Amino acid sequence: MFKSFASDNASGAHPKVVESVIAANKNHAKAYGYDEFTKKAELKFKEHFGGNIDVYFVFNGTAANVIGLAGITSSYSSIICADVAHINTDECAAPQKFIGCRLLTVPTSDGKINIEGIKKHVIRVGDHHYAQPKVISITQSTEYGTVYTSLEIRRIADYAHKNGMFLHMDGARLANAAASLNVTMKELTLDAGVDVLSFGGTKNGIMFGDAIVFFHPEYAKDFKYIRKQGMQLASKMRFISCQFEALLSNNLWLDNAKHANKMATLLARELGGIPEIKITQNVEANAVFVIMPKKLIPVLQEKYYFYIWNEENSEVRLMTAFDTTEDDIKDFVSTIQDCLQKTTVKS
Amino acid sequence: MFKSFASDNASGAHPKVVESVIAANKNHAKAYGYDEFTKKAELKFKEHFGGNIDVYFVFNGTAANVIGLAGITSSYSSIICADVAHINTDECAAPQKFIGCRLLTVPTSDGKINIEGIKKHVIRVGDHHYAQPKVISITQSTEYGTVYTSLEIRRIADYAHKNGMFLHMDGARLANAAASLNVTMKELTLDAGVDVLSFGGTKNGIMFGDAIVFFHPEYAKDFKYIRKQGMQLASKMRFISCQFEALLSNNLWLDNAKHANKMATLLARELGGIPEIKITQNVEANAVFVIMPKKLIPVLQEKYYFYIWNEENSEVRLMTAFDTTEDDIKDFVSTIQDCLQKTTVKS
Amino acid sequence: MFKSFASDNASGAHPKVVESVIAANKNHAKAYGYDEFTKKAELKFKEHFGGNIDVYFVFNGTAANVIGLAGITSSYSSIICADVAHINTDECAAPQKFIGCRLLTVPTSDGKINIEGIKKHVIRVGDHHYAQPKVISITQSTEYGTVYTSLEIRRIADYAHKNGMFLHMDGARLANAAASLNVTMKELTLDAGVDVLSFGGTKNGIMFGDAIVFFHPEYAKDFKYIRKQGMQLASKMRFISCQFEALLSNNLWLDNAKHANKMATLLARELGGIPEIKITQNVEANAVFVIMPKKLIPVLQEKYYFYIWNEENSEVRLMTAFDTTEDDIKDFVSTIQDCLQKTTVKS
Amino acid sequence: MFKSFASDNASGAHPKVVESVIAANKNHAKAYGYDEFTKKAELKFKEHFGGNIDVYFVFNGTAANVIGLAGITSSYSSIICADVAHINTDECAAPQKFIGCRLLTVPTSDGKINIEGIKKHVIRVGDHHYAQPKVISITQSTEYGTVYTSLEIRRIADYAHKNGMFLHMDGARLANAAASLNVTMKELTLDAGVDVLSFGGTKNGIMFGDAIVFFHPEYAKDFKYIRKQGMQLASKMRFISCQFEALLSNNLWLDNAKHANKMATLLARELGGIPEIKITQNVEANAVFVIMPKKLIPVLQEKYYFYIWNEENSEVRLMTAFDTTEDDIKDFVSTIQDCLQKTTVKS
Repeated sequence: MFKSFASDNASGAHPKVVESVIAANKNHAKAYGYDEFTKKAELKFKEHFGGNIDVYFVFNGTAANVIGLAGITSSYSSIICADVAHINTDECAAPQKFIGCRLLTVPTSDGKINIEGIKKHVIRVGDHHYAQPKVISITQSTEYGTVYTSLEIRRIADYAHKNGMFLHMDGARLANAAASLNVTMKELTLDAGVDVLSFGGTKNGIMFGDAIVFFHPEYAKDFKYIRKQGMQLASKMRFISCQFEALLSNNLWLDNAKHANKMATLLARELGGIPEIKITQNVEANAVFVIMPKKLIPVLQEKYYFYIWNEENSEVRLMTAFDTTEDDIKDFVSTIQDCLQKTTVKS
Repeated sequence: MFKSFASDNASGAHPKVVESVIAANKNHAKAYGYDEFTKKAELKFKEHFGGNIDVYFVFNGTAANVIGLAGITSSYSSIICADVAHINTDECAAPQKFIGCRLLTVPTSDGKINIEGIKKHVIRVGDHHYAQPKVISITQSTEYGTVYTSLEIRRIADYAHKNGMFLHMDGARLANAAASLNVTMKELTLDAGVDVLSFGGTKNGIMFGDAIVFFHPEYAKDFKYIRKQGMQLASKMRFISCQFEALLSNNLWLDNAKHANKMATLLARELGGIPEIKITQNVEANAVFVIMPKKLIPVLQEKYYFYIWNEENSEVRLMTAFDTTEDDIKDFVSTIQDCLQKTTVKS
Repeated sequence: MFKSFASDNASGAHPKVVESVIAANKNHAKAYGYDEFTKKAELKFKEHFGGNIDVYFVFNGTAANVIGLAGITSSYSSIICADVAHINTDECAAPQKFIGCRLLTVPTSDGKINIEGIKKHVIRVGDHHYAQPKVISITQSTEYGTVYTSLEIRRIADYAHKNGMFLHMDGARLANAAASLNVTMKELTLDAGVDVLSFGGTKNGIMFGDAIVFFHPEYAKDFKYIRKQGMQLASKMRFISCQFEALLSNNLWLDNAKHANKMATLLARELGGIPEIKITQNVEANAVFVIMPKKLIPVLQEKYYFYIWNEENSEVRLMTAFDTTEDDIKDFVSTIQDCLQKTTVKS
Repeated sequence: MFKSFASDNASGAHPKVVESVIAANKNHAKAYGYDEFTKKAELKFKEHFGGNIDVYFVFNGTAANVIGLAGITSSYSSIICADVAHINTDECAAPQKFIGCRLLTVPTSDGKINIEGIKKHVIRVGDHHYAQPKVISITQSTEYGTVYTSLEIRRIADYAHKNGMFLHMDGARLANAAASLNVTMKELTLDAGVDVLSFGGTKNGIMFGDAIVFFHPEYAKDFKYIRKQGMQLASKMRFISCQFEALLSNNLWLDNAKHANKMATLLARELGGIPEIKITQNVEANAVFVIMPKKLIPVLQEKYYFYIWNEENSEVRLMTAFDTTEDDIKDFVSTIQDCLQKTTVKS
């Protein structure tokens, strides 16, 4: 049986999400988001993120980021983000293609960016040769599995707003961050000054779908056209929205995230006991980054699928999900130990 | 209970499709299409459309059309299509935005275009002021619910190829066309000279998802990048592909389409008996276009949702779906008769 | 010696324009439009078009139209224009590529569009499937050499503004229209409700360069970035602006246009006397459209270069320029007569 | 009288260039590049760069770079360049907007990039999440006024070709590099493996205009459409091409470049004698980078216009041009000395 630490995307959907999909399939419903399931899901978002928001459902995280950013930028804008930001390294230039903009990257060793680094790009205001900085985009939890505190976010938001910019959050794993910090998602977004949020569900137990949350609906005035032109208007939208309804009900989002985080912590603890393996990032959400002996990797990948983050130093990324079990981790760790012994691969 | 003749998009998913989704949710699976469900679905496509094809799953029909066309055009290309083509009138300029191209429209009264009309645009070859015609795009079944025969398609394909162009088919309702003509889908595509097909499932009983079929894989060499940059790469792709696997198995696609077509024929027959109502297009698939008394429309829309196709002459579009029942039609028709009597709305 | 009725683009520059270029070449000057020549040229524009305008110089008419329109549209906008509009037929899809928008065309037999035709596209307001009409674009004088009166423009402007749209004028030959109607250019633009003007000089005696005039500077707030990103910011901008300074001084623009118009009238009169030739459009500016015997065309093109407008009915376009002489016309007409006799080409 | 070390763009045109423009203005000529002047200019390019090339004239350097790169990339490509590359920092995201691509930047302290730095981006081949590296773009002479040798270029070209990539050269100041190295321009381009060259004239004595040179015409097959759609097709193209004809005749390009370089050397020598001023880059072409006392800058800018390269460390860029005189330099240097004394601004 295939088991993966490659990505929280390798997991399926939570049973309650599937139930919600089955329930949504009863009758005819208006297409293109004018249905009751979508209305209910929007209300759920308002419960969690405040009543004065606009929510747009789209198909995936790429789109949530790209068209969400399109809603608050022009083609002559720049977006400031971490060098490891997903929008920078893993979207096949979709932001550039769809928006036309520049990404200005801030080097980071832990996935988090700070004002010192951001500042270097906020220059040449009014110079028509320079694509004008308009948005700061942060990822929560970060691509390295670390987490911004509310205060850190607030500082960046204040800096952004003082300089006429917006704060965007790639919240593909916002739930994991909230679970990690034991705060509400609202505290990490609206309350901390975030203007636009890409809220992901796929990595936290749904089948597919993302939501773009505008905390200032006036920015979203024409957004429905951007979504449609961005090829993200689902005809049977209920099948996205009903999943979010389930995810945001009865703390499912939180339970899933907490569990995934807990499994990452466990995994890190277990791996920490193996001298050949070095953990490289703080484990604050559901990712564990480790350097392992180069020769171990292919042997281990015969049984487990995971990403090599850095070929040069043999750093790999291990993700846990809502359905990772303690047994999965034990099995994985003991497989590592076996491999290390048998093959006597030592660094 | 809400019942709709607005669109085949108003229906939900067929139970077998839902079963397939539930079954696909068992374990972890590789993300981004490297999973077993996607492989199986691809094989199903090869069963139906021939072995030498490339299949790419995307989220919806807008994307299937737009990025499929992007795969075979340049920004300085023109795409020739019917004036009523969905890509022309209903995609919020997504083709123009994503590809950069021109659409050259051929007037049509029944949704079908012919070489006479196409020819007028195939001019100024080599003139750099004129975006060069590169693709002819036809919709099968058409936006008016009519159907191209294999021979009609072959003629257009031959003309396209002779002039260095490709033939694209918007097959959002290809199943309905095949059911109508009692031919295989391959006969209407590969065998008739179609180069690229957008194959829709959403209107024929799945929850969401479209497939782009390249009949000459050499055109699709770099298409995976276009899909990703087009924001259409699903991380948990199995949840799209497994639906197609169900749809293309055990003739589900055909049974669904046949049924929808049959219901349209029934609806047309019933409406044909009402003197105040005039059927305006041949009913060859699952659409019925009728002109009805202007005053009838709002009264009827209190109970039924459907699209007004042409405000000026009170033409409306009525769509049937795989789950439309004879009772639905009887109820709809008797409601019309009631409304006509009670309100004495006469044209 | 090469002589042409192909286009007013075939002529060179007026001696006074060349003088202005030579004069501008004296010293160093600030680059990118921060020079004195550009300031002076802007003042000239204010003399002609009113004091509260913003002027941006660009390289050519394609750019003036495309980026001017980009300044007042979104990618999900539609632009309504004549079917024969240059932006529709002769820009190689540059508007679609740069803006992303749809062009909605109004059929016209004389190059002019009216509200009846425009209205058919101003539908589906608020429908996210339909790229929303945002600009009406008219060409003055038109592609057929006809001219909109101030009143006709005002009517279209009022309709545009009442419907939340802008009026754009492709003024590649605005000078010819003003000369024809014996009114100022301001009467045909600002006073008639035009919001954005592409003002061409190339066809009226300069070497190269166009100006985009915003009659409501608030629309142009960020336009300098659009110009730069549109690859239209000249480093040595003085060499564009100084040409406009010459053109707009001492009535050069008007004298040039008047002369070109007069030559067209003369040409039409002369051709009108040849029974084998049929004039197809009113000659209101500097274009003469005629149908001539098919066999005559290649013979005539051995000596004269001109465009075949319509292959099917042998309609050709003949343009006069600021430097066309009466002798040129006599020579052209007598050549036609010779050809007709010698080759006995009769229709 | 205004004198500038701001940019070689602040200078006007060389008298011989103006003469060529005047000569080109004699008669009518075919528009859009089908004229004799353009043909002659193309032949001149072949004299200098080899017979098997394709040359396209455009309006400016932004366009030459952006659409030249568009000719050899896809929207899902990456372009590797120096962090200080003009295409990266000074084109207002025009490459991103027009091409859709990513720029991958290599940090550099002297403007030159090497394979070590390039290599880090040539990863993830075939991974659809990663915009695929397709072009390496180098600037010759660099943004820091340094120069790549033929051998250095050859090494990068070989690396590019071995990895399925192209080598593009931003040759806005190629003439200065050739003059500096005492080699032909062909030795620095075709012979060194460059695939596409943006050849600038504006900074070397013409009024406006750039040329895109394809060393492998098969890459340029459809390029005329890209130029037109890129809004870079001049109607009266002769006024661009005739300038290049003059520039490339009788060694004007070389004399101009040699002179500018010589003046930079002189300027550097003079400034080198002032203890408060520190030269920061090798002076290999026509740029001198210096750090000067912060307080000196505004005082000096009252008389001279120049760019502050780095606000933080008071580094400024001083450019010489074909028309910079020894007197200009003496005047400039003595002004600096005066300012330093009078204001006793010391670092």
